[in-house]
Amino acid sequence: VIDGCPAGLKIDLDFIQEELDRRAPGKDKYRSPRNEADQVEILSGVFEGLSTGAPISLKIANTDAKSASYEPIKGLLRPGHAQYAYLEKYGIFDFRGGGRASARETAARVAAGAIAKVFLQEQGIDLVAYLKQVGAESCSAFSDSSKQLKDALQSSPIFCPDLQVSESICALLEDTMQAGDSIGGVVEFFAEGVPAGLGEPLFDKLPALLAHAMMSLPAAKAFEIGEGMDVATKNGSIHNDTFENRSGKITLSSNHSGGTLGGISTGMPVFGRVAFKPASSIRISQETVSIEGENALFELPVGSRHDPCVAIRAVPVVESMLALVLADALLMNRVSKK
Amino acid sequence: VIDGCPAGLKIDLDFIQEELDRRAPGKDKYRSPRNEADQVEILSGVFEGLSTGAPISLKIANTDAKSASYEPIKGLLRPGHAQYAYLEKYGIFDFRGGGRASARETAARVAAGAIAKVFLQEQGIDLVAYLKQVGAESCSAFSDSSKQLKDALQSSPIFCPDLQVSESICALLEDTMQAGDSIGGVVEFFAEGVPAGLGEPLFDKLPALLAHAMMSLPAAKAFEIGEGMDVATKNGSIHNDTFENRSGKITLSSNHSGGTLGGISTGMPVFGRVAFKPASSIRISQETVSIEGENALFELPVGSRHDPCVAIRAVPVVESMLALVLADALLMNRVSKK
Amino acid sequence: VIDGCPAGLKIDLDFIQEELDRRAPGKDKYRSPRNEADQVEILSGVFEGLSTGAPISLKIANTDAKSASYEPIKGLLRPGHAQYAYLEKYGIFDFRGGGRASARETAARVAAGAIAKVFLQEQGIDLVAYLKQVGAESCSAFSDSSKQLKDALQSSPIFCPDLQVSESICALLEDTMQAGDSIGGVVEFFAEGVPAGLGEPLFDKLPALLAHAMMSLPAAKAFEIGEGMDVATKNGSIHNDTFENRSGKITLSSNHSGGTLGGISTGMPVFGRVAFKPASSIRISQETVSIEGENALFELPVGSRHDPCVAIRAVPVVESMLALVLADALLMNRVSKK
Amino acid sequence: VIDGCPAGLKIDLDFIQEELDRRAPGKDKYRSPRNEADQVEILSGVFEGLSTGAPISLKIANTDAKSASYEPIKGLLRPGHAQYAYLEKYGIFDFRGGGRASARETAARVAAGAIAKVFLQEQGIDLVAYLKQVGAESCSAFSDSSKQLKDALQSSPIFCPDLQVSESICALLEDTMQAGDSIGGVVEFFAEGVPAGLGEPLFDKLPALLAHAMMSLPAAKAFEIGEGMDVATKNGSIHNDTFENRSGKITLSSNHSGGTLGGISTGMPVFGRVAFKPASSIRISQETVSIEGENALFELPVGSRHDPCVAIRAVPVVESMLALVLADALLMNRVSKK
Repeated sequence: VIDGCPAGLKIDLDFIQEELDRRAPGKDKYRSPRNEADQVEILSGVFEGLSTGAPISLKIANTDAKSASYEPIKGLLRPGHAQYAYLEKYGIFDFRGGGRASARETAARVAAGAIAKVFLQEQGIDLVAYLKQVGAESCSAFSDSSKQLKDALQSSPIFCPDLQVSESICALLEDTMQAGDSIGGVVEFFAEGVPAGLGEPLFDKLPALLAHAMMSLPAAKAFEIGEGMDVATKNGSIHNDTFENRSGKITLSSNHSGGTLGGISTGMPVFGRVAFKPASSIRISQETVSIEGENALFELPVGSRHDPCVAIRAVPVVESMLALVLADALLMNRVSKK
Repeated sequence: VIDGCPAGLKIDLDFIQEELDRRAPGKDKYRSPRNEADQVEILSGVFEGLSTGAPISLKIANTDAKSASYEPIKGLLRPGHAQYAYLEKYGIFDFRGGGRASARETAARVAAGAIAKVFLQEQGIDLVAYLKQVGAESCSAFSDSSKQLKDALQSSPIFCPDLQVSESICALLEDTMQAGDSIGGVVEFFAEGVPAGLGEPLFDKLPALLAHAMMSLPAAKAFEIGEGMDVATKNGSIHNDTFENRSGKITLSSNHSGGTLGGISTGMPVFGRVAFKPASSIRISQETVSIEGENALFELPVGSRHDPCVAIRAVPVVESMLALVLADALLMNRVSKK
Repeated sequence: VIDGCPAGLKIDLDFIQEELDRRAPGKDKYRSPRNEADQVEILSGVFEGLSTGAPISLKIANTDAKSASYEPIKGLLRPGHAQYAYLEKYGIFDFRGGGRASARETAARVAAGAIAKVFLQEQGIDLVAYLKQVGAESCSAFSDSSKQLKDALQSSPIFCPDLQVSESICALLEDTMQAGDSIGGVVEFFAEGVPAGLGEPLFDKLPALLAHAMMSLPAAKAFEIGEGMDVATKNGSIHNDTFENRSGKITLSSNHSGGTLGGISTGMPVFGRVAFKPASSIRISQETVSIEGENALFELPVGSRHDPCVAIRAVPVVESMLALVLADALLMNRVSKK
Repeated sequence: VIDGCPAGLKIDLDFIQEELDRRAPGKDKYRSPRNEADQVEILSGVFEGLSTGAPISLKIANTDAKSASYEPIKGLLRPGHAQYAYLEKYGIFDFRGGGRASARETAARVAAGAIAKVFLQEQGIDLVAYLKQVGAESCSAFSDSSKQLKDALQSSPIFCPDLQVSESICALLEDTMQAGDSIGGVVEFFAEGVPAGLGEPLFDKLPALLAHAMMSLPAAKAFEIGEGMDVATKNGSIHNDTFENRSGKITLSSNHSGGTLGGISTGMPVFGRVAFKPASSIRISQETVSIEGENALFELPVGSRHDPCVAIRAVPVVESMLALVLADALLMNRVSKK
């Protein structure tokens, strides 16, 4: 349910479906081979192709739930999995697929993000996310525009714009899958055309809103804006972005900060990164205990699904969260001046 | 103003003042030499030493504001500073000290955090933050308890528990100050005794709430939980925390995840890191333009204040934000079961 | 979508359906003869009959939408109807049935209220709403328990516990329908077993939360708690509820205030009233203009639906809103003490 | 603290003070004779006379608190007073003056309302509240403009625009004071120039927001919009507001609804009423019990304060809440269209 979408926005079911298809698993061998059709249906909020201002309800039915495959392991605590924490919190856990702890919930984020993207495009904002790193294989920094980046992504099966790195990562993933293991990764995001003034000064700084959104993704373990962790080794004389007059328009000479100053956008591109842990579901046996505390060996049921590297599937999801945060910030900013 | 503080909590003005004194600048040569007394006063919400359930208003007057010292530079865009973004957002900027963009606002966070800490201590939760890294000087990981860490901090003028690293950082800061420059740093946080079940499953995962809080701090550029960015190079077989039965109690055998699974606390320590950029105020001249777009040289007025490394002052602030997020999550969790 | 329902609550689909059936139109001649099956379906949040803490999605499909019947009047501004205001606000209006301005949205409130009622019953709270007045026909005040009131409602086709008044109202409704007109009414609500301490002191006083909820209902024009508008003529010496010691327990001697003091519940029954305007859809022709501003006569299409008195259908809805507000207030109150 | 005030608004301390003076007690014999200077001070959020977008902190110190006068009655449960409910909720109560349960908190609402009024005036919205009824003495409906109403109020010591009724009410108040008693009253509010489109379709309908705001006032017991409770006796053929084309502009022919349709403003004046109970503090002795449950007689300490009719002082407060709700709704409405 998307509440707060302004009226009059063109809602294109085909575009939403395309976006969902980018996230969908089973598209290639590096993503878990499920048959999730992820077919989206609009239940409300749209009239004659335009948003009405009412909440937009989208429904994506799970046509490939295989509860039975979870039966054999339902009494065991799954290593690295949300189940234990949920049981402690709620005293009850729906073992069939993980419920809200399943990464399947990100389909909803992508569908909502597709609508936010249309809104942003109309305002001249363009954005992209891509796989930057898996294991030790990492792309160097890009100075390209989001359009060039998007084009480069087309040729990679794993959303990685540097095709040489893309190939190295694919090789690494082959080895990881062979070993029945999983591996972590980093997704970079990049938004162009963001106007100055987005974000709120104190608790809702733009980086804080982005961090909240990204760290709410399953398996996210770190968030960076601009140069991120690397700022620890930088001097102010290098890191400071100075101002210049470029043909009558004041602009920044550099963008070390990743597009925000004092938590508010500067008009420069907004970029950063999100790190995702290795998937907890692996084919290697792991020691654990049952819910009753008996020692046990946890083994993924035959035929059950897992991704060798969740960061790949996370790429369109990070892009969607970026779109949602920027759309919200744009709307919020309409009340900053009288 | 602290709203939502439960009634019946012991509010100790002396403890709040002590906490403020830890943050206050001018305490040593590495923090900017201001005369901020940071004297706190309670205006409401406390009766006979206990919270009444009403909002607690605390007032910390700024007795050392020197607006005059900002006069000479008021027409210039300060490199790395919030002023430009504020002007774009609001069309108006109070140049005297930076308003809400001044790190002085963190005094309020520390005062509020002091109250949250009392609440947490009564629930058996203990927490600490410390300076982990400045430039290339970095502490290795600690396996100590929060109590041991706190004790170690006493001997360092910069909240760094590894005294050898503390000395190296001090030397580095001397050089940086000599050069009129600033440098970035990393603060680590650590909370023990956090019960399982804190955080909400989707958007308000505990790491998301922490990331939001930490990235709302002035100069914060990255947030990590558990192993943070390093997860990109880890395999699931290593990173997964397995379960074991330790004398009848189910617990985790390791804590790579930093105390949360599926975004919800597991009962293990919650730890992570925040990276702070180098302070934008430096004594080295920087090229910039005036608000009207004329080329200009920006120089800090003689006698104006700056910190060589804001990460030092950020230590008690990170600790306070950790306390506030955990206290909120504890209260929120009271409604998770019927 | 019901978010924030505590885990472990028994969710009984049959009970939800029963509640919906009470609201459903077409049950008798005084409610508009639609064929809304109002069949409810649970999409998420329930596992083995218990709430899991996840959002509970309920779906009630509209199986009787007759968009065609709205065609002839789609270009006219309907007197007393939301359409004009929506067009001004959003620039777009889904003329087929009124969208969110249709009273059909109250089905969702009743479904959610059914779940809140189960939660309240487990805490010993019982509640009821009933038709108090239509036109000049009005029940006198009741001193009965909610159980007695509920029993009395069984014999009335219009939720009116005073059977003599019930009959008079039915006769009045016959006349009104004959004339093709509609008429207003008042619904009274009553909750027993509400513990002291619910509601927040300033903006979220319990009467404020109730007023917000009730005035958000379609056609609601007034909200009263306790003696409501009549307090204007009362003296403090009469209206004040004094305290007494009844067998060792402090209690109030009277309940003029309707169960709250200073906006917080006292442990006495919470009661009040909501007034509903006459339905705007009538069979009498009304002058109006088209969206383009041409003079026109508005006539309800033959076969289209309308209720002579929406206050009747509002009875279970008011009961549901009461249940939802009290359930929220109960949960909120869990954080009032340390 | 006023958060969310748009930047660039003229903040006029003198006007805020004038507004506070209208509410202040002791201005005439019908309002309790306290020496509350209600001197307002701006602590933040204003620069060179304009709002900066930062929270505006206003401080109104209580210079006339007489805690000592509450000593003799601190162990008794005050009839009609919040103290009992607070004790049940929080387990602690600051007996000195009532804390947040004191009507003194409405000074803050008036100060905030003054700022909202400036914002509204710039948008062409004008508003007024007045005393409509005390006891059986009541003004008839007004068809005047808000300007005419405001002028009429000048001549009444009790904000009552009908001077004959004003005199009758004054006489009634004399009698009530003589008897040591108090009496209830009704305040009417009226806003002109409100644009169409304010309010949200479901839970945050404009009448719901107004009801919430008004019922959050101390002593408020009922809220009406348009014809309020009287709609119960009206037919749709009379109550419906039809549309007409007045010199090329579509407008409503009548305004029975009080300026909203489907919960959203129509462009017509928004008006309604709030009923206030008789003040609970009276000079007549009342039976009660002590906190320990002993029977006792409650008598107001000599020299303590009370108002014979709180509805008088409530007039500027109702006006302020109206201003605040409309200002919020105006800002919210900026995001309704793309």
